[in-house]
Amino acid sequence: MDAAAGQQQEPQLSLAAVRDALVREEDSVVFALIERARHPRNASAYTPAAGGGRSLVEFFVREAEALQSKASLLLPSAGRYQKPEDVPFFPQDLPSHLFPAKSYPKVLHPVASLVSVNDAIWKMYFNELLPLFTVDGDDGNYAETAALDFACLQVISRRIHIGKYVAEVKFRDAPQDYSPAIQAKDKDTLMNLLTFKAVEEKVKRRVEKKARTFGQNVTLEDSANKQENVAEDSGCKVDPKVLSKLYDQWVMPLTKDVEVEYLLRRLD
Amino acid sequence: MDAAAGQQQEPQLSLAAVRDALVREEDSVVFALIERARHPRNASAYTPAAGGGRSLVEFFVREAEALQSKASLLLPSAGRYQKPEDVPFFPQDLPSHLFPAKSYPKVLHPVASLVSVNDAIWKMYFNELLPLFTVDGDDGNYAETAALDFACLQVISRRIHIGKYVAEVKFRDAPQDYSPAIQAKDKDTLMNLLTFKAVEEKVKRRVEKKARTFGQNVTLEDSANKQENVAEDSGCKVDPKVLSKLYDQWVMPLTKDVEVEYLLRRLD
Repeated sequence: MDAAAGQQQEPQLSLAAVRDALVREEDSVVFALIERARHPRNASAYTPAAGGGRSLVEFFVREAEALQSKASLLLPSAGRYQKPEDVPFFPQDLPSHLFPAKSYPKVLHPVASLVSVNDAIWKMYFNELLPLFTVDGDDGNYAETAALDFACLQVISRRIHIGKYVAEVKFRDAPQDYSPAIQAKDKDTLMNLLTFKAVEEKVKRRVEKKARTFGQNVTLEDSANKQENVAEDSGCKVDPKVLSKLYDQWVMPLTKDVEVEYLLRRLD
Repeated sequence: MDAAAGQQQEPQLSLAAVRDALVREEDSVVFALIERARHPRNASAYTPAAGGGRSLVEFFVREAEALQSKASLLLPSAGRYQKPEDVPFFPQDLPSHLFPAKSYPKVLHPVASLVSVNDAIWKMYFNELLPLFTVDGDDGNYAETAALDFACLQVISRRIHIGKYVAEVKFRDAPQDYSPAIQAKDKDTLMNLLTFKAVEEKVKRRVEKKARTFGQNVTLEDSANKQENVAEDSGCKVDPKVLSKLYDQWVMPLTKDVEVEYLLRRLD
């Protein structure tokens, strides 16, 4: 998170700042899905190459991640994957001296660098989410499709791994509540402590509304008559219900998995 | 353009389809600028490396373009830069057998592959546009900044080079109007034939409205009271006036440059 990572020593970490980051990330998630939805499924991009090789998408994501970390060869602080919320999908392919980062933000426990749910995100994205917001079909734009998938994966992963900060801020706020469960390795109690149903319902409704707002077809003509700031769902570029489902079924549960995994080792 | 490129032989090309593509591309331009505006200027990404080397951004764009065309090594039809509107910024760095494309859409005159205004787009983006929609400052996220700049450059370039289709469709519609000016190499007359002030004003107002709609901060609270579907400009993630200026000063003039350049060789 930039607010925390930008400071040099003992940065402040507030729940308000973390929440602002999560809310802003929602917009980016919606934009990324809308852009991917310009193309149909394009299943060929996901078919393993002949002889059991990698699919085009896997090839692309591996290479794109390597490129983004190579950037630090030119500008020492420029590399990606140096912030705890930027987690690569293929860390084994990255130049080893670049990962984990040297300039680790001091705001989190060092265990943060080991927490990743990217395998689950990868499976969820391709097996569950993609069929929900792309139409069947093939337009031949596989390289573009792979780049757009990479953008979706990256932003969803970043959103979920901001959970590391959520966990830290909640722990600092009430160490007496969390410490016994951490010491007892009691995942269920931790999960309960981290779950706020009312907040989750609000998040779901908000991302749905964002999809409706950002996915509408804006024309000059409708501005005078319309009384609402959202379009009909049928005219949206991505079904708003897909966004609330994405958050309900996967983003928020996986975020809590990140939080629990981080907290379980918070006292190490 | 997908509608045209997807077909195999003698595809139809309609002004309506080209206009739809241009209108949809506006949304992508707005999204890309909003995402880049999450970060401050980050001037270090644009500073040439010591000894007159390339800047981080130039390094990144060259490598990212090469990666996108390399995709076709895995999947023959997957490479970028095979469609006339996808024009690389550094064509000399791409594997030569991949560019120009083999499966060229037959809808345009072959000269289309030679028409590029990317040098002008590059200068415009970094010298003129970037300071208008990013704040002064440095948050250290240079690799991410470079990736977001690449996304902006790519979508603006694609939007502008769709002008090749605009030119073709207008020529087919009235070859008797265009041919004398083409034969006389009369750029001014061609530019006049291609200029429709009323349409350009509409486009400017529409992109401004899109920036206002997509750049607003969506909250659950404001939905009941709000009578308009757009936010105040001051709360927008990118100033909507920047979008209308971008289109007025650069996107539409450069599109017409593409159209003129294409038409001048349309009868070769």
